Amino acid sequence: MNLKELVGIEAAKYVKDGMIVGLGTGSTAYYLVKELGRRVNEEGLKITGVVTSSKTEEQAKELGIPLKAIDDVESVDLTIDGADEISDDFQGIKGGGAALLFEKVVATYSKDCMWIVDESKMVNKLGKFPLPVEVVPFGSHNVFRLFESRGYTPTWRMNDANEYLLTDGGHYIIDLHLDTIEDPHALAEELDACVGVVEHGLFIDMISRVIVGTPEGPKILEVPGK
Amino acid sequence: MNLKELVGIEAAKYVKDGMIVGLGTGSTAYYLVKELGRRVNEEGLKITGVVTSSKTEEQAKELGIPLKAIDDVESVDLTIDGADEISDDFQGIKGGGAALLFEKVVATYSKDCMWIVDESKMVNKLGKFPLPVEVVPFGSHNVFRLFESRGYTPTWRMNDANEYLLTDGGHYIIDLHLDTIEDPHALAEELDACVGVVEHGLFIDMISRVIVGTPEGPKILEVPGK
Repeated sequence: MNLKELVGIEAAKYVKDGMIVGLGTGSTAYYLVKELGRRVNEEGLKITGVVTSSKTEEQAKELGIPLKAIDDVESVDLTIDGADEISDDFQGIKGGGAALLFEKVVATYSKDCMWIVDESKMVNKLGKFPLPVEVVPFGSHNVFRLFESRGYTPTWRMNDANEYLLTDGGHYIIDLHLDTIEDPHALAEELDACVGVVEHGLFIDMISRVIVGTPEGPKILEVPGK
Repeated sequence: MNLKELVGIEAAKYVKDGMIVGLGTGSTAYYLVKELGRRVNEEGLKITGVVTSSKTEEQAKELGIPLKAIDDVESVDLTIDGADEISDDFQGIKGGGAALLFEKVVATYSKDCMWIVDESKMVNKLGKFPLPVEVVPFGSHNVFRLFESRGYTPTWRMNDANEYLLTDGGHYIIDLHLDTIEDPHALAEELDACVGVVEHGLFIDMISRVIVGTPEGPKILEVPGK
């Protein structure tokens, strides 16, 4: 069993009967959704899933997990998702899978959030992983030039056909190559205020728990004060 | 001549040969675009227009004003647009015409901006005019409930067929009925940080000049320090 599968199965244990569960996107969340599908089918687990991407929706539907749209629930009980980088103080970068906007919306309207990652994602400070910024296509080249002028070494996210990748929300993604993010709160505020930016991949103060896959087994880290 | 036409024609005088001009949207900007079209055709004025909506694009094309997309210009020399409310200290609310996102993008990448309004738009403090907030459809009902819980009395912007109005950017609009906005800067920051919010109708520190239509003629107000 690989480390991603390990934490996916471990995280599924936190899901109880009756819960509304936010289902993340990506290669690690894939195993969570797979295991929840198994429990629904084999153990009769009763849950309602809320998906964070068209990709996860497809997988959950195939597995027969009952789904509701985020707009049709007051709140989500628990969201479980992967992350691309998690710092010592439990801030994260997400969006490698281009689903950051919907992931962030679901996480924001969740009572509890946890991330599941293999140990390679745990870092001291954020920034080695390029920070995805979701932008409105109209004027996005001006936003790109602004990021260049600020020294953020932006690149466009392309799809397999080498066109601008279009997110589920109908936007583009610009990746910022920052190397080290000294102050994630300040950068988040700066990007929030940027006209043309829909959302960015900094997930600040969002989670209460991380499950890290290690060769010795899953390691559960509780976020202090959450 | 009505007051909107008056200021539209007055504002067109600020447009000089060779300029890249941001063309606003709405019933007042309509007269500006009309007058610029006249000058292009009758006086041989050489300009490039950058539109802020599909509606303005249509009008400008019909008039034969040469156009470029905002993404294809480094910056805009001067943007002229209407506004729904302008306060004593020259902050504004825009978005009554549902074009606030593209208007704000063009204004942001303009070296100079001015607003043209009839005198009914000049107010002491902002807020009587409902503040439009452009939101991502995914999760927008949760954003709506959040605004309710904050006492912002939100309403959905509907189209003529009584469906959710879809902006040129593919988003919804929620109007906030605030009556008075005591601190526009603080509210702008709060809305910027709101997950699911693409943009809002508060235009802060954006303009250098307002032309106000009054029965005595156009009144030109220069913004101090701009």
